[in-house]
This record gives sequence, structure tokens and C-alpha cells, in this order.
Amino acid sequence: MKLVRYGEKGAEKPGLMDGDLLRDLSGHVSDISGEMLDDATLAKLRNIDPATLPEVTGSPRIGPCVGNIGKFLCIGLNYSDHAAETGAAIPQHPILFFKANSAVVGPNDDVVMPRGSTHTDWEVELGVVIGKTAKYVSKADALEHVAGYCIINDVSERHFQTQLTGQWTKGKSCDTFGPTGPWLVTRDEVAEPQALALSLDVNGKRMQTGNTSTMIFTVAEIIEHLSGLMTLHPGDVITTGTPPGVGMGMKPEPVYLKVGDVMELQIEGLGQQRQKVGQDA
Amino acid sequence: MKLVRYGEKGAEKPGLMDGDLLRDLSGHVSDISGEMLDDATLAKLRNIDPATLPEVTGSPRIGPCVGNIGKFLCIGLNYSDHAAETGAAIPQHPILFFKANSAVVGPNDDVVMPRGSTHTDWEVELGVVIGKTAKYVSKADALEHVAGYCIINDVSERHFQTQLTGQWTKGKSCDTFGPTGPWLVTRDEVAEPQALALSLDVNGKRMQTGNTSTMIFTVAEIIEHLSGLMTLHPGDVITTGTPPGVGMGMKPEPVYLKVGDVMELQIEGLGQQRQKVGQDA
Repeated sequence: MKLVRYGEKGAEKPGLMDGDLLRDLSGHVSDISGEMLDDATLAKLRNIDPATLPEVTGSPRIGPCVGNIGKFLCIGLNYSDHAAETGAAIPQHPILFFKANSAVVGPNDDVVMPRGSTHTDWEVELGVVIGKTAKYVSKADALEHVAGYCIINDVSERHFQTQLTGQWTKGKSCDTFGPTGPWLVTRDEVAEPQALALSLDVNGKRMQTGNTSTMIFTVAEIIEHLSGLMTLHPGDVITTGTPPGVGMGMKPEPVYLKVGDVMELQIEGLGQQRQKVGQDA
Repeated sequence: MKLVRYGEKGAEKPGLMDGDLLRDLSGHVSDISGEMLDDATLAKLRNIDPATLPEVTGSPRIGPCVGNIGKFLCIGLNYSDHAAETGAAIPQHPILFFKANSAVVGPNDDVVMPRGSTHTDWEVELGVVIGKTAKYVSKADALEHVAGYCIINDVSERHFQTQLTGQWTKGKSCDTFGPTGPWLVTRDEVAEPQALALSLDVNGKRMQTGNTSTMIFTVAEIIEHLSGLMTLHPGDVITTGTPPGVGMGMKPEPVYLKVGDVMELQIEGLGQQRQKVGQDA
């Protein structure tokens, strides 16, 4: 299934993609969020004939594909070729930082650079949505704890991230820096999460090209590691790192976003995102 | 007011301290959380004659004093004498990391070290609970955005924090590593947040002694800085760093927690915490 949340910010309703048609799921669940991402509830939704669901007309805004995200966990430097472009060593364990859940927006909402930002950068990433409580989970069992997958743009202010005294989270947590969606694609529809092509364009020019097959730590290994540190709860989101081609790594010199730029992201089977860039006055 | 949440984990009810008596606030608010921490709602609660509220009998468990915490923001190395004991330089800006909100527990709940942990440490800290949305707030206006203050034990696994490849958050986010409370003391009862004595004992021996007067960045400066990076929402919690005396800084060698140890924390006017230490098998 391709689950979706649509409507105004903070008042999104649950929906389901039926081919290109958006259908209303609010007769069956109140939201797409941690409370309904277990296998049993998803199986029940899968048994509904989509043709019986009301069609949503018009072109409503698409919200983040998960509501009420508890933790937004981010893995850094998880593609060997991206680690190389930033000059960093291959990490021994998944690098973890948090993005504030208040940074989450819909897949096509504007990305608004904060006041004074001159180093805002893009990062297309595979997002993993937890469906089942995970603690001390082995790699072999890890993917059973995943409800599904989505696209995430892990927007990053590089000056805030690296020059404002320690800890990357400062450059990752600005409002609007977490476009998430359009769809939560349930894991039964993603046969191999480690073989997905992903890309990102800025103003129509291809900047990032990659494939999840070159991740240093697989989704299953990441869940094993994180669930040994803390409990992962349904509705938590993990974003799994970005392939090469970020602005920070451009030659002969870094390239950062400007007001009016347009970012377009895609991951095989997970849809597309499109954000315009603005800035707070 | 001293606001409190009592009852079983996940089913806490709102309460109010009337001297040493705990009284039930659930006739007036559904929880102590972001939705009711604005000045107007707090003023309404302040106008209630406590004697008209039902007395809570017995000795219920005390939960974290804020429910449904959005972001749990932590400031590192914010006491000049603690920075010195860890050998770190005085930071130029507040160091920010996140603690997973799934780490939050009540003030007297057990602290359970994760499997394999051998370097778990204590940190008594002044917690700040946001009451009013804050974005690009000046130092002068910052404290108007605070609902109140509480005690936090920023429990820290030093090996996870520093040896598992980058970013402190790994050692800060383990389940039970965020005892918060007992009370949310509203800011009208904390005349000067930068003049509070704080201390922590382990097994009856005083380990940390400090005063918020020696913070490098004041509460107001922290809010100014963070609100320039991201929006602070009602119910977000900021913990403001720890004074000297953590286990990691002990001479001739570091001292870490063992199963059965007891931590007792206090901050002037904000009550006391007491945790027993356990460990996952």
C-alpha cells in the first residue's frame, strides 16, 4: 500500500493511493501514525477494496506521510562514496544524530532557510518507518519491525552543523528541514530495500545519483544497532544517509541553496518530492 | 505552582502540590503538557483554591512532570568548572544535542543501564519547560517563553557517547536515561533561575555540588540561541548542562554506576529525585 496524509498542516487526513487516485481512509483509521502501523492493522487495510473508499477530489496539499513522529533518527556518512566526498573516514558503527521532529514537513512544502543561513544543502535519503516496538533486535529479525519506507530530504545547514560548536543536530533541525513522503510504502511492496535507485535534482540539474546497494550499514544493521541503544517505537522514523552529490562536496567549490531554487527528489517505487527554497527575513 | 503527574506509566493524571498534599487537577486539565502551559491557562489554575481539589491518598508513583514532550534539547559543557574537569575548552556557543524523548521517566523510577553498559554516569541539571512558542526570540524576552523549571538527571553512557563513532546522542538516549521532575515549578515561583544550588549524591556520598550562577550560557541566552535555529514549542524541554562532579571526571580514575547504586538529586526549590540503578540482562 501507498499510505498518504493530505490536507492543511496540522489537520491532515489519512489516505491511500489507488493507482493515481487518492482515496480517503478516514472511515477506517484516524491518522497514519504509530498507533496503526502494526502488521495486523495494515493487513486489515490491505483487505479493503480501494474502490469502496471515497475519492479525494481536487489537489490537496500532501503532508508528511507519518503523523506525530516520536523520534527522528538520522544516520550520517552511510554511503562509502559520500563519505569519500566529504573527506571523512568510513565509520565503524552507524553515526547517529537526531533531527528535531518539529522540522518535519510535507514532501512538496517550501524549505525555508533560517535567518542568516548561507550554507543550506540537500540530501536525498531512504526513510524507514518503524511499525513494531524494537529493542535488542537482531539483524535477521530487524525488517519485521519496519512498517514501510519513504523519501526524506535531510536538509542540512553546513555552517550550523559544523561551525556553531559541536554536534551536527544544529544544522539538521531547522524548521522545514525534514520533507517526508509523499507516501509511506508498506514493506511488502519494497522487495529489496538495499537495491533502490535514488536521485536529487536542483533546478533541473542532476546533483545526486545513488543506489541503496552502496550503503555501508544496511537498514537491518542500522535497526540492530539502534535497538541495542534504545527502544524504537512505532511511528519513529530513521533516515539512512545520503549518496554522493551534496552541495558541500562540489568541485571546484561548494554550492549551496539560494532563494527560489527548486529541489526534486526521487527513489525507485517511493515517488517524488519537490520543494521550493525560501528564507526567513 | 508545583505541577505534577502521578499514576502508572503512560496513564499519569495531572496534579498540584498543596504544601505536602498532592491534589488531583484532572477536573480542570487532562494532562500537564504543551497544550496547557500558556500563561493564561496557568493563571486560571493559579486562581483555583487548592482546598477545593480532591486530595490524592496513598503514595502513587510520580511520573515525568511534563507529558508528551516534543523535543528534549540538551546543552553540553555549560558550567565552566565542569568543562574544566572533562578537559574540554569553553564553548563559543551553547553545545546542543538531543536526548530521545523515549528516554524520559519519572523522578524516582529505576535507571536501567542497557546491555553491555559499563560506563553509565550521572548529571544533575536544571530543566526548562517551554510554555509559549519561541522563534527568533531575544535574550531580553526569552524567559517569558518558559512555563517553569524542574530537575533532570541527564544520565549518560560515556562509552556509547564517545566511542561508538561520533555524536553524543547515542550515550544520552537509552531508555530511562531522562528522569524528569518531580514537579514543574512555574516560573513565577523561581525568582532567579541563575542562582539555584544543585547537587547529586550516589549511595549517600555527595558527588556533584554546583550553582546555576556558574553557567557559561544563561537560560535566556540558551533560548535566544536555540530559537534562532528552530522553533521551540510548548512542552519542549531544555536541560541546561551539569556542574562538576560527574563520574567521568573522578580522580585518580573515573567512577561509573553499578547495579544497586542509588542516585539522589536536588535543586533549590525544585524538590528531589531518587533513582535505583538496574541493568538489562
